[in-house]
Amino acid sequence: MTSYLFTFNQFFDMVYSETIKVKIKSQSFSDITGKVEDIVRDSEIEDGVCVIISTGSTSAVLINENEPMLIEDLKDSLEKVAPKDEIYHHSENAYSHIRSSIIGNSKIVPIKNGNLNLGEWQEIMVFNFDTEEREREVVVTVVGD
Amino acid sequence: MTSYLFTFNQFFDMVYSETIKVKIKSQSFSDITGKVEDIVRDSEIEDGVCVIISTGSTSAVLINENEPMLIEDLKDSLEKVAPKDEIYHHSENAYSHIRSSIIGNSKIVPIKNGNLNLGEWQEIMVFNFDTEEREREVVVTVVGD
Amino acid sequence: MTSYLFTFNQFFDMVYSETIKVKIKSQSFSDITGKVEDIVRDSEIEDGVCVIISTGSTSAVLINENEPMLIEDLKDSLEKVAPKDEIYHHSENAYSHIRSSIIGNSKIVPIKNGNLNLGEWQEIMVFNFDTEEREREVVVTVVGD
Repeated sequence: MTSYLFTFNQFFDMVYSETIKVKIKSQSFSDITGKVEDIVRDSEIEDGVCVIISTGSTSAVLINENEPMLIEDLKDSLEKVAPKDEIYHHSENAYSHIRSSIIGNSKIVPIKNGNLNLGEWQEIMVFNFDTEEREREVVVTVVGD
Repeated sequence: MTSYLFTFNQFFDMVYSETIKVKIKSQSFSDITGKVEDIVRDSEIEDGVCVIISTGSTSAVLINENEPMLIEDLKDSLEKVAPKDEIYHHSENAYSHIRSSIIGNSKIVPIKNGNLNLGEWQEIMVFNFDTEEREREVVVTVVGD
Repeated sequence: MTSYLFTFNQFFDMVYSETIKVKIKSQSFSDITGKVEDIVRDSEIEDGVCVIISTGSTSAVLINENEPMLIEDLKDSLEKVAPKDEIYHHSENAYSHIRSSIIGNSKIVPIKNGNLNLGEWQEIMVFNFDTEEREREVVVTVVGD
């Protein structure tokens, strides 16, 4: 009978979720790779996917190289599409919403053998594109077995 | 033996899926938040993720604030990157495909205690970037336990 | 007791994963739709989602129409946002990272009755935006039952 009980326990490990709260300055980001790695370890899930979702409509999640000069370049590119000082129909943070929409508010990382399967130059970063410092809520959900 | 039957039933609740069909005018959108909430309720899944996928290559799914003036601003920004009246190599709806590629055709929302865990200003919107009104098919898949 | 063993076997089918390696020229792409279909078939998962993730920070995954002229148009649009010959703060491939960030390094496709539920004009393409040919690693994870 032990094996069936094992199945039962394993079943409840299919989904594991934790919420990260992090204060981020305007047009800046926080690298949450370490925190997400901890959550994946806590989940005890060996194979599956890890979904990182920011619940703010002026924030975004990016998986890319965490290199300060590159982030400046990315912001310069977003400035072309959604400039800060343009006149918008919406209130003063329209550009924040648009930058968030382009980068996207969620990303997914594969899990292999209990670890995030990130590429050599990949880090998980949360951006705050809003006009002032904000505490951002990021829901990390691990799905697998 | 009851507990094993319980496991068996629970198991088949790990994935639940429904397809939404919605007519949307060109360069417009439909807010499907209420419909997705209904599907999550029908799924009886308590914790996990809800994946919203549009199967059209000139459509997109966006999670952001549903404020008409903001949507106009977003369209103005997309017009900079993929203008309607530019001459393209592809047939007349190249800009539709490009706008769809930038916003993305799928988004994910966490599920907590049987409800979508959307942020305060987040709504789920399906965009039709094609040159004319189209019926859009959106597959909503709930994964969890 | 047979039904419980069935449950046990099904359980281990909830997640299935394979890695695709594909050489792609600079600013070019590879259509991996057929390979992903094979993986979904191998998974024996009937209903759920298929997550396609590229682990390179200068690559991207796109689900759209595989039409060569359209891809040229998409690249022209990305050139507006992140031009190749602009002077960046980061090393010579900043534009590669930015293009990857805009298109995104992962995409999701629903699975229905054991098949990818792609729209009529949707193909799964991996882009290499780096400055030279690279072997790209794409992790395909099938989650469902």
